[in-house]
Amino acid sequence: MADIQNKSIISRDDNFAEWYTSIVKKADLVDYSSTKGSMIIRPYGYAIWENIQNTLDKEFKRLGHENIQMPMFIPESLLNLEKEHVEGFAPEVAWVTHGGTEPLEERMCVRPTSEVLFCEHYKKIIKSYRDLPKLYNQWCTIVRWEKTTRPFLRTREILWQEGHTMHATKEEAMKETLGILKVYEDFQRNYLALPVIVGEKTDKEKFAGAEKTYTVEAMMYDGVALQNGTSHYFGTHFAKAFGIEFLNKENQLETPYQTSWGVTTRMIGSIIMTHSDDLGLVLPPKIAPIKVILIPIGKANEEVDKAIATIKNDLDKLEISNKLDNSDKSPGFKFAEAEVKGYPIRIEIGPRDLENGEVTLVRRDTLEKMKVEVEKASTECVKLLETMQQEMYDRALKRRDTMLYFAEDYEEFKTIATTKPGFIKINWCGDVACENKIKDDLGLKSRCIPQDDHEPNGPCAVCGKDAKCQIYFGKQY
Amino acid sequence: MADIQNKSIISRDDNFAEWYTSIVKKADLVDYSSTKGSMIIRPYGYAIWENIQNTLDKEFKRLGHENIQMPMFIPESLLNLEKEHVEGFAPEVAWVTHGGTEPLEERMCVRPTSEVLFCEHYKKIIKSYRDLPKLYNQWCTIVRWEKTTRPFLRTREILWQEGHTMHATKEEAMKETLGILKVYEDFQRNYLALPVIVGEKTDKEKFAGAEKTYTVEAMMYDGVALQNGTSHYFGTHFAKAFGIEFLNKENQLETPYQTSWGVTTRMIGSIIMTHSDDLGLVLPPKIAPIKVILIPIGKANEEVDKAIATIKNDLDKLEISNKLDNSDKSPGFKFAEAEVKGYPIRIEIGPRDLENGEVTLVRRDTLEKMKVEVEKASTECVKLLETMQQEMYDRALKRRDTMLYFAEDYEEFKTIATTKPGFIKINWCGDVACENKIKDDLGLKSRCIPQDDHEPNGPCAVCGKDAKCQIYFGKQY
Repeated sequence: MADIQNKSIISRDDNFAEWYTSIVKKADLVDYSSTKGSMIIRPYGYAIWENIQNTLDKEFKRLGHENIQMPMFIPESLLNLEKEHVEGFAPEVAWVTHGGTEPLEERMCVRPTSEVLFCEHYKKIIKSYRDLPKLYNQWCTIVRWEKTTRPFLRTREILWQEGHTMHATKEEAMKETLGILKVYEDFQRNYLALPVIVGEKTDKEKFAGAEKTYTVEAMMYDGVALQNGTSHYFGTHFAKAFGIEFLNKENQLETPYQTSWGVTTRMIGSIIMTHSDDLGLVLPPKIAPIKVILIPIGKANEEVDKAIATIKNDLDKLEISNKLDNSDKSPGFKFAEAEVKGYPIRIEIGPRDLENGEVTLVRRDTLEKMKVEVEKASTECVKLLETMQQEMYDRALKRRDTMLYFAEDYEEFKTIATTKPGFIKINWCGDVACENKIKDDLGLKSRCIPQDDHEPNGPCAVCGKDAKCQIYFGKQY
Repeated sequence: MADIQNKSIISRDDNFAEWYTSIVKKADLVDYSSTKGSMIIRPYGYAIWENIQNTLDKEFKRLGHENIQMPMFIPESLLNLEKEHVEGFAPEVAWVTHGGTEPLEERMCVRPTSEVLFCEHYKKIIKSYRDLPKLYNQWCTIVRWEKTTRPFLRTREILWQEGHTMHATKEEAMKETLGILKVYEDFQRNYLALPVIVGEKTDKEKFAGAEKTYTVEAMMYDGVALQNGTSHYFGTHFAKAFGIEFLNKENQLETPYQTSWGVTTRMIGSIIMTHSDDLGLVLPPKIAPIKVILIPIGKANEEVDKAIATIKNDLDKLEISNKLDNSDKSPGFKFAEAEVKGYPIRIEIGPRDLENGEVTLVRRDTLEKMKVEVEKASTECVKLLETMQQEMYDRALKRRDTMLYFAEDYEEFKTIATTKPGFIKINWCGDVACENKIKDDLGLKSRCIPQDDHEPNGPCAVCGKDAKCQIYFGKQY
């Protein structure tokens, strides 16, 4: 077990990709199996996902959404009902062709997303304006047959939630689309401590079949983008393809307006790639499964045991999840392990400190140490966890802001793109040709037209024509 | 929406199968899609499953289990590693043969259960006695390619939990197997109000690859059995096939002992088929997503609104889930709908009762009415919900006991089996030939050798030889 020692983690500044892979393994978040392209999410990783699920699920329900469970298989003929959608997804689905020893009459794919299943269902259950809105959400796994995979970031099987809603008016559907975008943004800022940029995707980058796609874009430590959640406005696009209609109050047939939105376990990847360091995982306190680890120092001792019991009891009363490491490993080994696992606070309880009635608290994010009285340890933890949550966000924001650039023209854009990691903002004419040129020349994709500060202040940086908006470009995972 | 009226439900005594199908549809628990053999679990049905999950998940965790997530696909070569297991499952798995447009090098099945995935993982992570026990659980969907399907009872896709544990000793593994069996039994008795019979499966009926299978057998209103959860003891069977070994304290290699156990959404079917009636669903209070429905009577009225506000507020404080039906439907329609949905208590709030400061409480199970003061309504609900939970169990137990038979010889067995629904207990020699004879002659399968009262008190009812135990037979869903 010597390899738990954090010294074996590759430095994130030397090789970010290898550092990431070593973190997810050493912190015991995932493992591999002979099912290629999928991952085993280990208990510690899954506990983070459960925290994410519980928090978001409460918020969805508070906003009136209901959970539902659709089949995992989609018959080919159903997938084919919406043209843009099937063209977008058919190349990357897994096909089931046999049940037991018999070939199926019609092959079925494992859902890559469930728009068509929801549309088929909505056609059956929506008849009148009284049936609207329908606000459904589903927690499930989806499959997309990716060629190259990385834990949490890109895997063939993905754990996610997908919301699918139907509304009587365009305004209401748009309000839902943007309302959920705000839920995602707030959750990622306040729980995951990620300084995300929210905005609208270009036509080129939007979801297959959507009228508008809004996105939450996070920037990793290395300046590369991670699309961390999307909210789509479909208008009546799918509804018309599926013939969904309802009688309005005037007893006339209308087509309803639709949205869909989702976030995945990818968010766990973005936590790692934003906050963690060369010693291991660093977790924002609000999402950490275990917030405080208690480590006794020195030989078994009545005073130490008493202090541990007091602090543990106090933490339990305050509902701060905690764990005592009373294994027979050395304190140094336990410290290293606690650092790899990213427990936000470590409390060292030893005879020397206890002579003064004190214990030592260590913050995982800054490794700063402080001595506090035994009786005050739990309330200090509460304060410290809040401080850490805020400071982790502030540090991530500060770092991200050093990697946001503005380019007035294409020369400047090229210079930045080829020398500096991060996002580059430009004025843009709105033409896909300019977007494609950047992709072809430099490998950068448009991230989003941001919600804030998107008014153009000059001509298009690519073609020099009149600009319609400002837009971010960046490399992506 | 007139078909919500419960009069349209087929009588359960006339046609139990059609009655069941009409209940699951009318109570809005499930719907169908073009994905044959799968079901859509609608929000009300899914909310019951969420209650089941939350209750069991807490109990599993309290007992030290951790949640994990394995891939949903199993490569064919991995499935083939354990002979009995693959023979049991291969005929009923769904095969994925293509990823996008390309055929896979090796086809993969969608997991019908995950023993082989857990074994492969355990081989990697178990090295020493320090790594034991491993107590993992997974909430997921599995697929078994059933030919005939019925909502909740038998579907191609199944929502379930599967526990997989590894232990250093046989005793510890057996303790786990029986400990989880007890969790299942207690949950079904205390939460689902099901008077289950627990016991051991015969060799013929045990899980493919298990040394022992224990089962929780419920009897439906029509006397037919539903296997409502199983807990398996594997011994070292799988571990040897996968080469899993650990170093014990004496530094010698040993093979660990294994268990697995699971319950599914089928339990929702057993709630329906045990407690519901010709008016619709009847839900045990502890598992009901909405425990109290408030229905105003008469025209909008300040007194009525005030009483509703008081009661709703009191119920919320007591954390009793409740819903106000303030739609513009008639009270009669609302009553019928509340009965179809099986909300345990209905509170009718009308001007006439309020003249005496009272409202009317109606129990869903007996339809008994009682008048209570507005201020006491919420605390009366608490008492009534407890009473109903107990009485629903008592009634189900009483009914079940009228359908338990004992047959001394094969003639008596045949007479009962061909004239009366229910379970028939016999003395059994333990020979599979006798078990097969009953199956071939009469279509009854062995349910279990019960934990209680299994000592034989006469010769085998089939062959007349010395009996080894008593055993239940019955028809099954």
